[in-house]
Amino acid sequence: MPRTLAARRKSYLTRSVRPVDVTRLSGLGDLLTQFQTTSIQARNLGRCLEVWENALTDKKRPTILLGLSGPLIAAGLRKVLRDLVDWGLVDVVVSTGAVLYQDLYQTIGGRHWMGTPNANDVELRDLYLDRIYDTYVDELKFEDTDRAIGRITEKFPARPASSREFLGFLGERFDDPDSILATAARRGVPVFSPALIDSSIGIGLTLHYQANRRKKQRFMLDAVRDNYELVQILAGSPRTAVIYIGGGTPKNWINDGIVMANYAFGREGEGHYYALQITTDVPHWGGLSGSTLDEAQSWGKISKTATRAMAHVEASIGLPLLVGALWDRRSVWKGRPRLAFDWTGDEVKIRRSR
Amino acid sequence: MPRTLAARRKSYLTRSVRPVDVTRLSGLGDLLTQFQTTSIQARNLGRCLEVWENALTDKKRPTILLGLSGPLIAAGLRKVLRDLVDWGLVDVVVSTGAVLYQDLYQTIGGRHWMGTPNANDVELRDLYLDRIYDTYVDELKFEDTDRAIGRITEKFPARPASSREFLGFLGERFDDPDSILATAARRGVPVFSPALIDSSIGIGLTLHYQANRRKKQRFMLDAVRDNYELVQILAGSPRTAVIYIGGGTPKNWINDGIVMANYAFGREGEGHYYALQITTDVPHWGGLSGSTLDEAQSWGKISKTATRAMAHVEASIGLPLLVGALWDRRSVWKGRPRLAFDWTGDEVKIRRSR
Amino acid sequence: MPRTLAARRKSYLTRSVRPVDVTRLSGLGDLLTQFQTTSIQARNLGRCLEVWENALTDKKRPTILLGLSGPLIAAGLRKVLRDLVDWGLVDVVVSTGAVLYQDLYQTIGGRHWMGTPNANDVELRDLYLDRIYDTYVDELKFEDTDRAIGRITEKFPARPASSREFLGFLGERFDDPDSILATAARRGVPVFSPALIDSSIGIGLTLHYQANRRKKQRFMLDAVRDNYELVQILAGSPRTAVIYIGGGTPKNWINDGIVMANYAFGREGEGHYYALQITTDVPHWGGLSGSTLDEAQSWGKISKTATRAMAHVEASIGLPLLVGALWDRRSVWKGRPRLAFDWTGDEVKIRRSR
Amino acid sequence: MPRTLAARRKSYLTRSVRPVDVTRLSGLGDLLTQFQTTSIQARNLGRCLEVWENALTDKKRPTILLGLSGPLIAAGLRKVLRDLVDWGLVDVVVSTGAVLYQDLYQTIGGRHWMGTPNANDVELRDLYLDRIYDTYVDELKFEDTDRAIGRITEKFPARPASSREFLGFLGERFDDPDSILATAARRGVPVFSPALIDSSIGIGLTLHYQANRRKKQRFMLDAVRDNYELVQILAGSPRTAVIYIGGGTPKNWINDGIVMANYAFGREGEGHYYALQITTDVPHWGGLSGSTLDEAQSWGKISKTATRAMAHVEASIGLPLLVGALWDRRSVWKGRPRLAFDWTGDEVKIRRSR
Repeated sequence: MPRTLAARRKSYLTRSVRPVDVTRLSGLGDLLTQFQTTSIQARNLGRCLEVWENALTDKKRPTILLGLSGPLIAAGLRKVLRDLVDWGLVDVVVSTGAVLYQDLYQTIGGRHWMGTPNANDVELRDLYLDRIYDTYVDELKFEDTDRAIGRITEKFPARPASSREFLGFLGERFDDPDSILATAARRGVPVFSPALIDSSIGIGLTLHYQANRRKKQRFMLDAVRDNYELVQILAGSPRTAVIYIGGGTPKNWINDGIVMANYAFGREGEGHYYALQITTDVPHWGGLSGSTLDEAQSWGKISKTATRAMAHVEASIGLPLLVGALWDRRSVWKGRPRLAFDWTGDEVKIRRSR
Repeated sequence: MPRTLAARRKSYLTRSVRPVDVTRLSGLGDLLTQFQTTSIQARNLGRCLEVWENALTDKKRPTILLGLSGPLIAAGLRKVLRDLVDWGLVDVVVSTGAVLYQDLYQTIGGRHWMGTPNANDVELRDLYLDRIYDTYVDELKFEDTDRAIGRITEKFPARPASSREFLGFLGERFDDPDSILATAARRGVPVFSPALIDSSIGIGLTLHYQANRRKKQRFMLDAVRDNYELVQILAGSPRTAVIYIGGGTPKNWINDGIVMANYAFGREGEGHYYALQITTDVPHWGGLSGSTLDEAQSWGKISKTATRAMAHVEASIGLPLLVGALWDRRSVWKGRPRLAFDWTGDEVKIRRSR
Repeated sequence: MPRTLAARRKSYLTRSVRPVDVTRLSGLGDLLTQFQTTSIQARNLGRCLEVWENALTDKKRPTILLGLSGPLIAAGLRKVLRDLVDWGLVDVVVSTGAVLYQDLYQTIGGRHWMGTPNANDVELRDLYLDRIYDTYVDELKFEDTDRAIGRITEKFPARPASSREFLGFLGERFDDPDSILATAARRGVPVFSPALIDSSIGIGLTLHYQANRRKKQRFMLDAVRDNYELVQILAGSPRTAVIYIGGGTPKNWINDGIVMANYAFGREGEGHYYALQITTDVPHWGGLSGSTLDEAQSWGKISKTATRAMAHVEASIGLPLLVGALWDRRSVWKGRPRLAFDWTGDEVKIRRSR
Repeated sequence: MPRTLAARRKSYLTRSVRPVDVTRLSGLGDLLTQFQTTSIQARNLGRCLEVWENALTDKKRPTILLGLSGPLIAAGLRKVLRDLVDWGLVDVVVSTGAVLYQDLYQTIGGRHWMGTPNANDVELRDLYLDRIYDTYVDELKFEDTDRAIGRITEKFPARPASSREFLGFLGERFDDPDSILATAARRGVPVFSPALIDSSIGIGLTLHYQANRRKKQRFMLDAVRDNYELVQILAGSPRTAVIYIGGGTPKNWINDGIVMANYAFGREGEGHYYALQITTDVPHWGGLSGSTLDEAQSWGKISKTATRAMAHVEASIGLPLLVGALWDRRSVWKGRPRLAFDWTGDEVKIRRSR
């Protein structure tokens, strides 16, 4: 082999795969660190941890946005998500309405029941049980939840508002330490749901609309205001990091936010600086949910120099591993200052707090 | 074998798989009919055709709702989708904003360019080209599109509106026979986008918000109004059929609409009577996009007696096959009356027209 | 934009996506040609056609190897596969044992019955019905098939042989124009099954082994002889093309054959020159079935200059489209000479015949 | 709700999903136990642990067969697999040739190098590096491995043999405590590879064939003998349990073994009593790799009363979790007797040892 080829070859052979040893594990932090020197999706999951920790320890103190989609509460991830918010490992939450609705359903006393994917769905219909793959939820408790949301919505000021305001209002009304929404409200973490009408929370809003639609003054979900609030957060952050659990509207919207912010504030921002995703989707269907974080670079949505990682693993397995590893390694991020978001109407100022 | 077992056995063996013969094909209608007596996903796709045709020939004249998600314009499906609207094979369209934005981008003169998934995304960024898997779009033409949408938005009445009104307004402003939005406007087919802010159309809306937000009277996307309009359509239809290309917000919202309609109008409706989906998602991740149409029965979203089919095939291949077969077999649905939607503010009356 | 950037940009924008028009279709050949200027998997499937046609019209007359895996007979593809062999569009077949067994099962009079994936499998067990996803096969007819294979095996010469010899022997014994194996025998197309023991054909072989194992002279599946026969075919071909329906052992073995041929005949061959695959697997699990044809280049298994294409579509849909298009466009490949394989024991000479 | 419905409803609501709490984790055993009361794939993975432990603690002492496919050594799972063999958590191994070849490659000193899926494969070709998704292997070391295997093969008795004999012979020749094959040889665990010729080990065997094929007496891979040996093991076991990492030939062959054993020994066995699989494949493609363990019941391959579980997770993540949990909970299986396999030619007697 010619010398130049041999040199080039050598440059490729610098880090060898090290086999995982489960007999020498001191915890999930150690497991995911071991994963970082394996291959295939274990390595990708290990790199997700690395990217998240890089974002948490970045001196510029990036704003970390968490995008949530999929059956996360059914999957038993409510505590894990609530912890992320409570510990300050994420600064902004963007979620489908379904995740937040099921969070409230549990606050109201509803439970997710272990079922089976092979259930008789027509019988379940008769029993007022709704199926989410292998899990059942209780439609009678759903009605209680809808009523509770309805009562709170009636107290909301009769004016246009963003989903963030409305969800914050909901979160403040519940004194449930296990709730994602209530924890976010207590910690001042903004929660957005850009497609909130597309969820069971939307049912209550529809009934409210039906009852109030002829009034001059009424609460109105002013959808575009969500965008305006998001772009201010992005523009007001020295850097941003994004963590996507699944894809869907939350991923697309947080990604698009960069482009909107550039337009709205006349600057060419650099895109999200850190990006990680755990997903069950794939790139070759061409959809946004499964698109690579490389592809997002062509759109300017992810920074050209971003640290990024994408692991193909379903969230019920992947997220506890990541968050468990972060907990194990909490000395890494301890003392990171929190953000305080000061809202005046639709305007926001961001300060570091502690 | 005991006689009862033998009888039971015989009852299972009634229809045998017949091999596809490509030498005796008279068109796509014939191919999909052949598929109906094969197995695996070809059979499922053949059954999708059957369900669609059942909906089209049902004497009760169901309202057919089409849910769109994924990179459909990039995939070369613009004409196919426009034809479905023009021919009256769907009565209502619910779409992600991205599909509609890219429809307008083409109306403005933008094109989708054949590229490669292995592109250098950082270079594409510098060239103002955005990648959708194996396809490039032109960011400079995107700016033209944004400006055009911006100009039209300025002319929209200064009041709250649904996405349906706004998209209808957009569609009327373009005289492009190839456009989905313009064809829908001409045909009176309502187009909803429940997460419209989560798209490039949302960028223009954000700028409009930024410029007008302090005005007393301004155009406002009154998100919940979309729900109220949808539930009226569902409640005003003798039956409904749903056709999902992909999943995402359109599928979830159309499905949820049934539950909302039951609440809003105090009746226990029967769920969508016909349902078909082509998808690349799978049930075992537990998400809504890949959930089975059986599962939706437990929620009351799909009728207990629905005719339903789900084929696992990507839309760029699956949709032309289905629509080509429908075209081939147009004698089946020729003469089906159209629907006219008479809107008075946020109220709708549905009539059969022709 | 600087002039050099603008020029580079322009170089990327040469071919635009053209929407599929199902109202102007003259057949499957036309559909797949239209697919070639779309995107996502339709484009990939169109490119598969292009690669296959390139192989068929290459003046060097490449040897075309077909790798088969998956539930192809259940899926209704028996006629399509038999046609490919009959028309000379493939020169060598490598298959899982299951495909070939089910081919014989149909020759014996067995049928594949339309069933459902939600069947009660414990009841099916009692009824002697075996399920392949949505299809049932008849275990009683399986026994007839096993007996027929057993009888033929007894007549096979009492010596070591390759799977190719044994399968050719089987194919010659059945006078069934619809059979893949019988058609291959009639046309002189070699059929290999490198994991033949892992199939229901293997059951018969096991019983034969059990009855004859103490004999000095007995028929023996001399597995490595398959390799030696394959490498001669590869080494004796001016060029090779590979067509993979699914992945599994057939894909891996045909790919590996190149490396074996290089070793066995001390030359550095160029790898398969044309390669196409339709698959439901994905690259990011790291397995061979879903690995890209690019990856195979690093191993020297696919030529550095290969024309290659990979479409993500299940075979029951993808294969009839491809073969139907080839049939439509038969003027392209008409008159292509066939290959004659002259076997002397384990040695082969390849001639062009007609 | 009528009383009977209410009672039925209540019967469905017995076990509620409990959220995972990563702050109260004492190890992987605890994590997977927590997973057992969640949903989606975490629950399935938790159930896999349960099934494995049931098999390990079954008083009838089932024979446990492990099926291996996929890029397991590249993925960093060599130690995990070797541990399973060493600890006696599996009694028989069935593997693709690739896994075993790469095990030997590491014994010879070869390494798997961390690379990237976006590598330039044509350049890698020139550098004699072969890519497995995100990992590189060294083709020059492959040649060393091939030579080593070649030298050992020359010493193998000149007669027909099963893959089990040959692989045992190989394993005995290497004194490498980290090797799966060497550990299996030391522990007397039989290792089969029913498609051994379809691997790089097959390259050496092909060269050996080429050099020896005219000899009267030569080592010959007598493929069907593998089947005969397997069916004796199955028939000689009071019960069997199967653990599938991926699918492919190992899964199919172990499943088929039941049918073969019934035929060969004229009894109607009950199928594998315990079955678990971790897989990235799906049922709806109709292939065996992704087929459900329910489907296998219709074939009589899995017992009607089997305890079974299937988790959709890639092995590099899923397997360390399972094996780590087993290690954590080693008190559960400690002291389980091992099996000794006494081979006389192609006949085997199984005894409990320890």
